[in-house]
Amino acid sequence: MTSADGRVLRGERTRAAVLRRAADVASVEGLEGLSIGHLAADLSVSKAGVFAHFGSKEELQLATVRAAAERFADAVVAPVLDVPDGLDRLVALCDRWLAYSRSRVFPGGCFFFSVAAEFDARPGRVRDEIAAARRRWLGLYEAVIAAARRRGDLEPAVDPAALAFELDALGMAANLHAQLCDDPAVHDRVRATMLARLRALATTDHPALVAEAP
Amino acid sequence: MTSADGRVLRGERTRAAVLRRAADVASVEGLEGLSIGHLAADLSVSKAGVFAHFGSKEELQLATVRAAAERFADAVVAPVLDVPDGLDRLVALCDRWLAYSRSRVFPGGCFFFSVAAEFDARPGRVRDEIAAARRRWLGLYEAVIAAARRRGDLEPAVDPAALAFELDALGMAANLHAQLCDDPAVHDRVRATMLARLRALATTDHPALVAEAP
Repeated sequence: MTSADGRVLRGERTRAAVLRRAADVASVEGLEGLSIGHLAADLSVSKAGVFAHFGSKEELQLATVRAAAERFADAVVAPVLDVPDGLDRLVALCDRWLAYSRSRVFPGGCFFFSVAAEFDARPGRVRDEIAAARRRWLGLYEAVIAAARRRGDLEPAVDPAALAFELDALGMAANLHAQLCDDPAVHDRVRATMLARLRALATTDHPALVAEAP
Repeated sequence: MTSADGRVLRGERTRAAVLRRAADVASVEGLEGLSIGHLAADLSVSKAGVFAHFGSKEELQLATVRAAAERFADAVVAPVLDVPDGLDRLVALCDRWLAYSRSRVFPGGCFFFSVAAEFDARPGRVRDEIAAARRRWLGLYEAVIAAARRRGDLEPAVDPAALAFELDALGMAANLHAQLCDDPAVHDRVRATMLARLRALATTDHPALVAEAP
């Protein structure tokens, strides 16, 4: 490895470390709470070094949203791809989301809930990036529901987009309530509500719909 | 009226104007975005005058949450008290909430959604005040549902707390989605989902459950 390769590698490591820390901070204090100076101090790197990677606070915010989307995909989406199509995968997706919120993959709870609420009334590139992440997430939920319906696990009358919106709404509310009202049991209650919704829409008593926690 | 009375009255008017403006700003930029200096400049009053009313940023934030709760009660709760008990009142409560979010009583959408997401991971008096407002709101929703069940409008098996949580989750998600994803039609879709949920839990075809928008 040449010394230039070494510099590139160190640069990539610094960039990844900054984005990891930035997403953690933003989940608690918001994307507006990010400061290149604080991040540099937290990670013992130079402010100029951090600035060289991002160039502006907006670029840092955009890169933070993209990096957080990768962590979200690793925590929630990737594990579900190994689960068979149909109700099994749909229940696994609900469970992975609740586990992601409960276990605080990000210290402030769901990163996307925090920054969506922060930026929903602030038009611009950062809001567009967060909105795109939300649309991808709802699109994935909808595709998993549509596949379960196609497989005959759910009633033909089920509207995948509406059910995706409903399950996601329950997840977001659990995430908020757990933190705001110090109520860690809310994830279990919301899981029971999600399973009851699915039971009402399922064509048969599916083994994935037993009521115990995962 | 003595000149002292006049001063008190002017002071109360200034305080009310500051809190009105503060809640509007916080619904867009968050409670951390509040600045006594900016509020004073916006309202053409002295910074010292605003400071005299609140004394600290935290006191200003607390007073803003309380003042926003009064505006919320005026917009959502008060109109519903004239509606007869039972499913009529429950549907009216859902509709008033959706109208409150849609019409932007606060310019950034629901004030409480914005500040709850902002403070849910920041323990302290401000978070406690926001959590108390959320508990009061869920408690009211639950009481209206329990009354509808007692009246025989809803199945005896309905869990008022769980249904209140579910309807509130749908409302919050509509509020977020409308703004983040520029999707004003989401309020109508969510109203249809709410009515479908209530139809599934109602004992009879109640006139309040016809599907048209209010």
